[in-house]
Amino acid sequence: MSITIVAGVDGGGSRTRVVIADESGRELATAEGGPSAVRPGEAERSAEVIAAAVREALASCRMADVVPKVLVAGVAGAGRDSERDALWQALLAREVAEDVSVQPDAMIALEDAFGDGPGLMVISGTGSVGFGRGPAGAFARVGGWGPACGDEGSGAWIGRRALSIVTASHDGREPETQLSGAILTAAEVNEVPELVAWAAGATPATLATLAPVVLSVAHGGDLRANSLVTLAVEELVLHARTLARQLFGDERAAVPLALGGGLLAKGSLLRKRMVHRLKSAVPGAQLREEEVVPVRGAVRAALRLLGATAA
Amino acid sequence: MSITIVAGVDGGGSRTRVVIADESGRELATAEGGPSAVRPGEAERSAEVIAAAVREALASCRMADVVPKVLVAGVAGAGRDSERDALWQALLAREVAEDVSVQPDAMIALEDAFGDGPGLMVISGTGSVGFGRGPAGAFARVGGWGPACGDEGSGAWIGRRALSIVTASHDGREPETQLSGAILTAAEVNEVPELVAWAAGATPATLATLAPVVLSVAHGGDLRANSLVTLAVEELVLHARTLARQLFGDERAAVPLALGGGLLAKGSLLRKRMVHRLKSAVPGAQLREEEVVPVRGAVRAALRLLGATAA
Repeated sequence: MSITIVAGVDGGGSRTRVVIADESGRELATAEGGPSAVRPGEAERSAEVIAAAVREALASCRMADVVPKVLVAGVAGAGRDSERDALWQALLAREVAEDVSVQPDAMIALEDAFGDGPGLMVISGTGSVGFGRGPAGAFARVGGWGPACGDEGSGAWIGRRALSIVTASHDGREPETQLSGAILTAAEVNEVPELVAWAAGATPATLATLAPVVLSVAHGGDLRANSLVTLAVEELVLHARTLARQLFGDERAAVPLALGGGLLAKGSLLRKRMVHRLKSAVPGAQLREEEVVPVRGAVRAALRLLGATAA
Repeated sequence: MSITIVAGVDGGGSRTRVVIADESGRELATAEGGPSAVRPGEAERSAEVIAAAVREALASCRMADVVPKVLVAGVAGAGRDSERDALWQALLAREVAEDVSVQPDAMIALEDAFGDGPGLMVISGTGSVGFGRGPAGAFARVGGWGPACGDEGSGAWIGRRALSIVTASHDGREPETQLSGAILTAAEVNEVPELVAWAAGATPATLATLAPVVLSVAHGGDLRANSLVTLAVEELVLHARTLARQLFGDERAAVPLALGGGLLAKGSLLRKRMVHRLKSAVPGAQLREEEVVPVRGAVRAALRLLGATAA
């Protein structure tokens, strides 16, 4: 068949999203697979997950025998050259498309938010990270160092600090706070000392489940919860400010900015506080209100590559 | 034989120390065994470690056939009633002594530092904790919540924050600091990004190995290292201040205070800074300069029980 189609892939640590689109960008089919974030030595496994999801999407729009002209895969872990190259080879070998581009997941998020223009993104979910592209095309990243070193202002970071506040309050080292009851309820334990065992078995994702509790208690007016939210906002704003200076020269320059991740979703208290604080800390920030959908960015990147090929 | 002897035991998470003494307190023999900290369901194992070390000490002073009149065991984990009772039963069943007393490890440390009088101890090693006895005999404890919830001002706490400073400095989120080179050297990696894998595999004890590096860099005048040391001191002073208020009513009251743990050893920068800060934060603190040796406190407690029995 002579239908021209492209594929966009968002390959993350918990799932893989695929969108098939025609040359006008119209979405023809979607599919979802398991995790395809690429770790050293695991490029073949990642490629297999991605290829299976692409085949499933093609079959669902009755195009099982059509090979996409271009496939763009934004994949977590593809910031490392060796992993990106290995995954690219593995995808080409599977003939998932005539032309394949593997990019770090950050690039397809930027593509959706700002096309190939300049802009910054700050993300706070279980972890936190900031990245962006400057007016001259330079890419930079801050944070994202993982739960032991950093991820400042992330859900796991907020959760761990909440545990510290609750135990310190129990000791009388800090004032009483409504966080205590709320955290006990969220951890499903009866007494503060039981939090020791709970915390010892907690993953970063488990700790991050406490962050919405902190935001809710802060919203209710609790002073300690509010000061913790303020600290988190400062860390996330510092991501944006650092990138604005590195990529735009100055935090007062016009800086397109998008926020992402569960804790910065529209309507969340953390987002509201951050948007407020940005006005003084990064006065040039121009906030993008629309949600960022990385797989949509992958499709757009594929269409641009298609145009370049056709031209 | 009719020789009257006592045994003191310091049962910790990494080793067990035993001292055999005569009724005048003269040390007759010592021995060391593996860890005997008591965890739920493991009292028999703890008792066996303690009994073996006691037998070894008795044999080394040719008293293998003598049963001590009193044995006092200060054991980590014996703050929980159920563990204390189980260990007490298990030691009695092994006939380690005519009379046995099992106490939390904090009690024999206080005994060595202050006899049965009032006083506070603040400890910073891998973890941190404060505990003490008030003028009326009441016992209280703050901190010691473990690496996930707290242990503020401890070695693991300082090490984790140092990693956060070094990665943030690498990102340009924070100024340059001499911590960067020193931490890379200590972790035996070449580049800051390699710290992610290093930190992911680090235990609290591993993180605590970075604390002496921080103290050394702070001593050299580095601003960021110094501000981290200041934060740690504030946390440890807050342990002392909270206990002074709870047990002595007021931080200006006369409060005997001992410092312990590797990071607060004599001559350390952390100890010097803490002693300085205590002057304004806990002005009533009367610092005990002599090193605290918990097993010596266990012997003293045993001698007092012996006197009470004889009387």
